[in-house]
Amino acid sequence: MPAPYTLAEIAAVLGASVQGDAGLTVQRLMHPLEASRPDDLIFVMAPELAARLGESPVRQAVLAEGLEAPAGALEASITVLRPRFALGLLLDLFERRPHSPPGVHPTAVVEDGAELGEGVSIGALAYIGPNARIGAGTAVLPQATIGAEARIGSDCLLYPGVRVGERVEIGDRVIIHNNASIGSDGFSYVTPEQASFEAAKSGGDRVSARIAGLRRIASIGTVRIGDDVEIGACAAIDRSNIGATVIGRGTKLDNHVQIGHNVTIGEDCLFSGQVGIAGSVKVGSRVVLAGQVGVADHLVIGDDAVVGGGSGLWKNVESGQVVAGYPALPKTEALRQQADLARLPRVLRDVAALKRQVAALLQGRSE
Amino acid sequence: MPAPYTLAEIAAVLGASVQGDAGLTVQRLMHPLEASRPDDLIFVMAPELAARLGESPVRQAVLAEGLEAPAGALEASITVLRPRFALGLLLDLFERRPHSPPGVHPTAVVEDGAELGEGVSIGALAYIGPNARIGAGTAVLPQATIGAEARIGSDCLLYPGVRVGERVEIGDRVIIHNNASIGSDGFSYVTPEQASFEAAKSGGDRVSARIAGLRRIASIGTVRIGDDVEIGACAAIDRSNIGATVIGRGTKLDNHVQIGHNVTIGEDCLFSGQVGIAGSVKVGSRVVLAGQVGVADHLVIGDDAVVGGGSGLWKNVESGQVVAGYPALPKTEALRQQADLARLPRVLRDVAALKRQVAALLQGRSE
Amino acid sequence: MPAPYTLAEIAAVLGASVQGDAGLTVQRLMHPLEASRPDDLIFVMAPELAARLGESPVRQAVLAEGLEAPAGALEASITVLRPRFALGLLLDLFERRPHSPPGVHPTAVVEDGAELGEGVSIGALAYIGPNARIGAGTAVLPQATIGAEARIGSDCLLYPGVRVGERVEIGDRVIIHNNASIGSDGFSYVTPEQASFEAAKSGGDRVSARIAGLRRIASIGTVRIGDDVEIGACAAIDRSNIGATVIGRGTKLDNHVQIGHNVTIGEDCLFSGQVGIAGSVKVGSRVVLAGQVGVADHLVIGDDAVVGGGSGLWKNVESGQVVAGYPALPKTEALRQQADLARLPRVLRDVAALKRQVAALLQGRSE
Repeated sequence: MPAPYTLAEIAAVLGASVQGDAGLTVQRLMHPLEASRPDDLIFVMAPELAARLGESPVRQAVLAEGLEAPAGALEASITVLRPRFALGLLLDLFERRPHSPPGVHPTAVVEDGAELGEGVSIGALAYIGPNARIGAGTAVLPQATIGAEARIGSDCLLYPGVRVGERVEIGDRVIIHNNASIGSDGFSYVTPEQASFEAAKSGGDRVSARIAGLRRIASIGTVRIGDDVEIGACAAIDRSNIGATVIGRGTKLDNHVQIGHNVTIGEDCLFSGQVGIAGSVKVGSRVVLAGQVGVADHLVIGDDAVVGGGSGLWKNVESGQVVAGYPALPKTEALRQQADLARLPRVLRDVAALKRQVAALLQGRSE
Repeated sequence: MPAPYTLAEIAAVLGASVQGDAGLTVQRLMHPLEASRPDDLIFVMAPELAARLGESPVRQAVLAEGLEAPAGALEASITVLRPRFALGLLLDLFERRPHSPPGVHPTAVVEDGAELGEGVSIGALAYIGPNARIGAGTAVLPQATIGAEARIGSDCLLYPGVRVGERVEIGDRVIIHNNASIGSDGFSYVTPEQASFEAAKSGGDRVSARIAGLRRIASIGTVRIGDDVEIGACAAIDRSNIGATVIGRGTKLDNHVQIGHNVTIGEDCLFSGQVGIAGSVKVGSRVVLAGQVGVADHLVIGDDAVVGGGSGLWKNVESGQVVAGYPALPKTEALRQQADLARLPRVLRDVAALKRQVAALLQGRSE
Repeated sequence: MPAPYTLAEIAAVLGASVQGDAGLTVQRLMHPLEASRPDDLIFVMAPELAARLGESPVRQAVLAEGLEAPAGALEASITVLRPRFALGLLLDLFERRPHSPPGVHPTAVVEDGAELGEGVSIGALAYIGPNARIGAGTAVLPQATIGAEARIGSDCLLYPGVRVGERVEIGDRVIIHNNASIGSDGFSYVTPEQASFEAAKSGGDRVSARIAGLRRIASIGTVRIGDDVEIGACAAIDRSNIGATVIGRGTKLDNHVQIGHNVTIGEDCLFSGQVGIAGSVKVGSRVVLAGQVGVADHLVIGDDAVVGGGSGLWKNVESGQVVAGYPALPKTEALRQQADLARLPRVLRDVAALKRQVAALLQGRSE
């Protein structure tokens, strides 16, 4: 049911009530500073924006609890207790699904043996490999790729340029943004010192070209992505050497997140932009990694752990621990270390003064 | 006007004059160590390369002020005062626009309602969504995507694999490199603690599947990119929840830069590779962020600020401030802190010595 | 030769011998916890997995030296001395080349003058620019791009969405993963202070639009990639201003690695995920950069250097040096600095105590 909505309908979705004329009609949800028409609705969380409500032609607003519009500025308002949650509900009403008419665009390529569920949309110039399977209601937007034998669940949304590798398995309601890569090979090599030239020779000619330097370890495994996962633009998730790299149900990965091979991530985690997880790491559920966090290979991060932005992890993190810093420490220690560092100039001066004083005392005693 | 040029023509473009034969013809601009023909021109900024000019077959060079070729090595030269600026002018002469014949390639898909300006080039296998508008002289290279209702200005250059999301607005003379993503959804969720189960239920079935974990906040806003912006390969700019994420005129973003939702960036900024800006940050004009800088959400960075490579920002930065470090400090403080840290081993020894000496003094007094 | 293999055949490839029935047949190589059929082979490196071998239906395993299966758990086993190297050999046997039938897919676009070697596979919706040259046995997977006049060697594997820019040169047996960008323009500008308005004017109208702010320095150079290089998903390598950005034979770059313009990298280097190298850096051979390392422009890193994860480099690194930290220090110094920092709280307490004691001593003397 698209716009317009009455304020009464919107209030019902928000589980709140209307002050003023509940029959007013809403056509668009706009930013407070960009709203320009009386039938725009705005959502106000900041007191300074609430104070300026009289300056706009807008007559209707959703207000975070505690905010008030100047007298006479609005004809109707809805006050919500949990503003960010209400914002989520409200935005769902006005969200527009990207252009994705059901059916297969005539320029898309669907290889033999591919199975498409009911209502699937395959966009222009998309590629569906042999024997891939795509669940009902899923939209593969223009120029995306689904590799051979991949399995995509129902009601997924795969944006342009998404690359799903061969045999990768993806759950239901998964959203993958522009140019993300799921299922590239792991970054896995052995160095010459680990190699026996004799053993290499027995691998035949295809090995010999590479034995001078690093030897590649192939990735015959896959990636398994749970239901309700969301993956950001230009993110990259490597397949496992053997078995699967696993992203648990409900986990959200931001843009440019890199997940190495053999990694296992639990449910409902949040990894912000540019987080990098090296190979074979195990992450629990509900773990929050802020932007640019780096995690060294083979570490274990427990459930409900929280890691501050830019932190570098070289040690396991216990369940529920909050860590930060490079290298990461428990957050209270990291903050104390920063405070200590700020006191360092004074310590240096104090030590110099003490040395002079003690030297004088020692001299006094020896006289 | 493509090559060949006479040296006189080149000198005119550089606002400089020719020493020697101004009628010599230049076919190619080459790296000093790769030039191989007498009609190659080289550009020399390094003294050690100037000293070796006699070794090459090249007879003509542009020299940075202060450099001299060995006697007899050149038949003609042009000396320039601002070498890097002159290099820019010179490279423009020899730059070749990527293959992009005007018109729509027969394999491109242009949906209903799309408007293409004069001289537009739509490359092979590109996709132009419904009602998109593309200004005169813009080239959309092969396999790029312009989403429904997007607006692209004139004389833009969009490289293969660029994804411009629906309703995104892009100015004139904008360059976007391979596989960059403009307009993916913001990384925005509310956690269960913020959610009321009752409110969620009133949102209907589409909410219930997700309420067990994180609740998604949709992005109905857009991205607005000013004139003369350049965006690097694999960069990602998220759309706003409501309103627009804004990149100001003349700003340049390097490869892998990540710009979160609701961010506003001023004019003529320079963000180097892998910089990450979290949601709702406000950046002024002429701000320089070196590589891998991370900026936490909702911060404000003033005009003309400079941030050193790899810095992590958790506090606002004043206009004109130069900061560095993790966490970032004013640069002079950051450098002093590093120097203090280097003195720490000596301080530890000094304190140990002082403890012994003072213990001895105290013992002496008590005897 | 695809599966099935006999254990004897597998042992021959591994340069090892079979304990037990060498005639057993292997159909699949599986993860120990996912193997489900008697003809699965598993590879066991972890003692805890070896101890559980009896729980699985699997009857054959490759074991790292020193591991033993519970009595009666296996019908046959192969013990290997260098497990990771053996894993590489074994995975090669079971690796499946991505779907890439020889020939040109009817939806691919191959422009005039392009030359394709014997057995080349050009996937669906791929684009091969004018006069590009692709060596025998190379597979360009669906929706990849090879720019005009690019040169690709033989037996390469270019995954979907890979963008190879115009005139880029790539050696033999090179693997490039999803959505990597090779040959975008360098991030190179001059600031107004370096610019003379007079010189700018002489550059004509195309300059004037930009002179208000930053002036672009074009990239007329290219990228040269040696044999046996592997490049990760969403990596980006910029072309040189003049001459070439060079990646030496055998070097491996992980996902999201960023290589700036004019950079030169030697042979057999390993750069892990999200490493960023600024412009004009020179890296020797066999250099290892762990994840998220950042290298400032124009630095020189010697052969066999090793840099710890997340390090920031602002100084050259000598051959064979091991450095770590932000900013990077020799690793022993970096570790000592961390230890010193951990002792800082005690030092602060000690200095406070010393000040009290010395004050008392001074007072005692003055009495």
